[in-house]
Amino acid sequence: MTAEYQLSITQTMYFQVEIPFPAEFPMFTSFSSQSAFVNRPALGIMPPENFPEKLAESLLSVAPSGMSRVQTMACGSCSNENAYKAMFIWYRNKERGHNIPSDEDMSSCMINQSPGCPDLSILSFMGGFHGRTMGCLATTHSKAIHKLDVPSFDWPIAPFPKLKYPLEEFTRENAQEEARCLEEVEDLIVQWRQKGRPVAGIVIEPIQAEGGDNHATPDFFKKLRNIARKHGSAFHVDEVQTGGGTTGKFWAHEHWGMDDPADIVSFSKKMLTGGFYHKDELQADKAYRIFNTWMGDPSKNLFLAEVLNVIRRENLLEEVTRSGKTLLQGLYQLQDQYPNLLSSARGQGTFCAIDIRDDATRNSIILKARDKGVLLGGCGDRSIRFRPALVFKEHHVHMFLNVFSDVLAEHN
Amino acid sequence: MTAEYQLSITQTMYFQVEIPFPAEFPMFTSFSSQSAFVNRPALGIMPPENFPEKLAESLLSVAPSGMSRVQTMACGSCSNENAYKAMFIWYRNKERGHNIPSDEDMSSCMINQSPGCPDLSILSFMGGFHGRTMGCLATTHSKAIHKLDVPSFDWPIAPFPKLKYPLEEFTRENAQEEARCLEEVEDLIVQWRQKGRPVAGIVIEPIQAEGGDNHATPDFFKKLRNIARKHGSAFHVDEVQTGGGTTGKFWAHEHWGMDDPADIVSFSKKMLTGGFYHKDELQADKAYRIFNTWMGDPSKNLFLAEVLNVIRRENLLEEVTRSGKTLLQGLYQLQDQYPNLLSSARGQGTFCAIDIRDDATRNSIILKARDKGVLLGGCGDRSIRFRPALVFKEHHVHMFLNVFSDVLAEHN
Repeated sequence: MTAEYQLSITQTMYFQVEIPFPAEFPMFTSFSSQSAFVNRPALGIMPPENFPEKLAESLLSVAPSGMSRVQTMACGSCSNENAYKAMFIWYRNKERGHNIPSDEDMSSCMINQSPGCPDLSILSFMGGFHGRTMGCLATTHSKAIHKLDVPSFDWPIAPFPKLKYPLEEFTRENAQEEARCLEEVEDLIVQWRQKGRPVAGIVIEPIQAEGGDNHATPDFFKKLRNIARKHGSAFHVDEVQTGGGTTGKFWAHEHWGMDDPADIVSFSKKMLTGGFYHKDELQADKAYRIFNTWMGDPSKNLFLAEVLNVIRRENLLEEVTRSGKTLLQGLYQLQDQYPNLLSSARGQGTFCAIDIRDDATRNSIILKARDKGVLLGGCGDRSIRFRPALVFKEHHVHMFLNVFSDVLAEHN
Repeated sequence: MTAEYQLSITQTMYFQVEIPFPAEFPMFTSFSSQSAFVNRPALGIMPPENFPEKLAESLLSVAPSGMSRVQTMACGSCSNENAYKAMFIWYRNKERGHNIPSDEDMSSCMINQSPGCPDLSILSFMGGFHGRTMGCLATTHSKAIHKLDVPSFDWPIAPFPKLKYPLEEFTRENAQEEARCLEEVEDLIVQWRQKGRPVAGIVIEPIQAEGGDNHATPDFFKKLRNIARKHGSAFHVDEVQTGGGTTGKFWAHEHWGMDDPADIVSFSKKMLTGGFYHKDELQADKAYRIFNTWMGDPSKNLFLAEVLNVIRRENLLEEVTRSGKTLLQGLYQLQDQYPNLLSSARGQGTFCAIDIRDDATRNSIILKARDKGVLLGGCGDRSIRFRPALVFKEHHVHMFLNVFSDVLAEHN
């Protein structure tokens, strides 16, 4: 394998492959790259000279529809925390009619009091995961172990649709379930406004990942986006897990087919750096409002630019779509073969999952697979999630299904 | 200059010097290092094989007194957020008598409600700066621009001593001021307990940096540490700005001369990676409670290990102490020369500051100095802070004082 494959392989969190690459690997021999590795700049005040170009080559070359701005951050949690702050700032500026803050705003915020620190909220969904710092954690509702013992905010939590799979076989029931959840979203927005804690933003994953690979239809997301618009809340799509190509599109929200899918899209993981894209109006009105010392790490943009080159040159999104279809087909077959063990196979691209009879069996399957050389992860209460790298091809699918089938036979 | 100087120089946020280093620089040619650069592991679940050794060589070789554990993080805010979480978890485990959480704990935390998300608080100080994510921001009180429009927590905020400089000339008044602040701390702890929002931890900087380079005496910190112990609150020393050698000791809290200075010490910036040290009892009782995907970046430990080698080999802490004394002496002289312009010169090591007549003059001095090739930063309302790199020697002090003196002459 070549050095480029090495880069693509490291995009996944579930493979760590040590493959030698050539000593003349240009990333380590060009002076400007070496400088980017050794120097860790305070990006917000002293970016390297070529930083805008590097952003154009890397992050901005894959900007979501309607967004030409990006803010880098060092990790996924910081990305979402700062995205929330951008939404709060935007919302309060609207409320103030874009006038300058009052003296009371300025003095009360210093001691954590309203109106300077306003009673605003972010609406999130049960089963969602958006990180573990205290702002993010107030919108995370996937497992108690993440949240226990940490103080939180009184923010609204809506139900995420619990759909039946395959989605296309249960369209009527699924549409009803989605309508129920959307109605609840609107009720919560009204309730929290009445409580004096308006919803400044809605945050959602295109596929609830940590919470159990829960899908919803494009129709659900379109209607939700419209509800946000109608009530003056910003719409934040968290693509930390789903972004980077694994669903067969670069961003999972592209499957919704919308020109204006979101006000903010956050990312991390496969993107090798954290950060968020945003629409022009979500730009903070003053410097130093969205800011910290490092604001990311420019050396990661160099890696990302290389990864994007490989994705394009090798048509990896098409490959992901192809191997994802084969993977899901294989999971359907295994589900037919082991109806007491498996259910609800689902996925988009290679971002697939399947439910296992119970938690204990799920964990045993993950351990047995590991002993046979396949790293799987759990999500939700009793699901297994599949997160292969972008270089996972059809023949890898067959290799995997053989191993998985053997492991399942031991558990039937 | 050699490559090693390059590393030391990049430790500061205020110099960006591009000096070529040899192509055979071992960091980029050894296989294991290249692997550390290219692979970005999910450290919490798949650390590189040699990660414990690398931590022993780097972060653990400079662990504060009484601490043998370290948790790496990707940035300063995440370091403090997770340190706060560690204090909340520790505090609740004490309250529960180390019994397992109740069903009510587990279910209520999923919807942000108490007792699972308890009403606990962190006591912080007016003028403190601890980061900009939402938990950190609730303890940051240095400038309104950081906090405006972001919802916050009702947590206690104590006054930080406003001392007169040089400290040794005003011992009696300063001791009174410190006693006043300590009394207020105890009052707030009692008040917040009565409000049903007990203080799980106290967070403080050894020198309030962003807030204006505000110093307090070792006696103040010793008594504060005792107050924390007496009331069962954890004591968190935030060394994000002060750590890494710039005060002449590796950690600024070493100037207090205590065997048990803190329960938690957080760091970032000069350490090239974020994270926090902690005492054994602050270790979370279960895996995945203090956790995220990246939890830092092991390639930064390689750089830190090299930086520490240079610090030791070149006795840079002694150099900092020596050039710091010369710098402070020079500032005292300029203050005598320009009594209407300058006041309150203060510092430890090269971590120095001086107050300027007013905000506008301060900003003008910073700009003029920049035009003469010296990068200075502001802090507080009207202070200039000096933050040279560890390789800043006595002859650099004289070069700097010459330039600074010229700039001051233009403003007198």
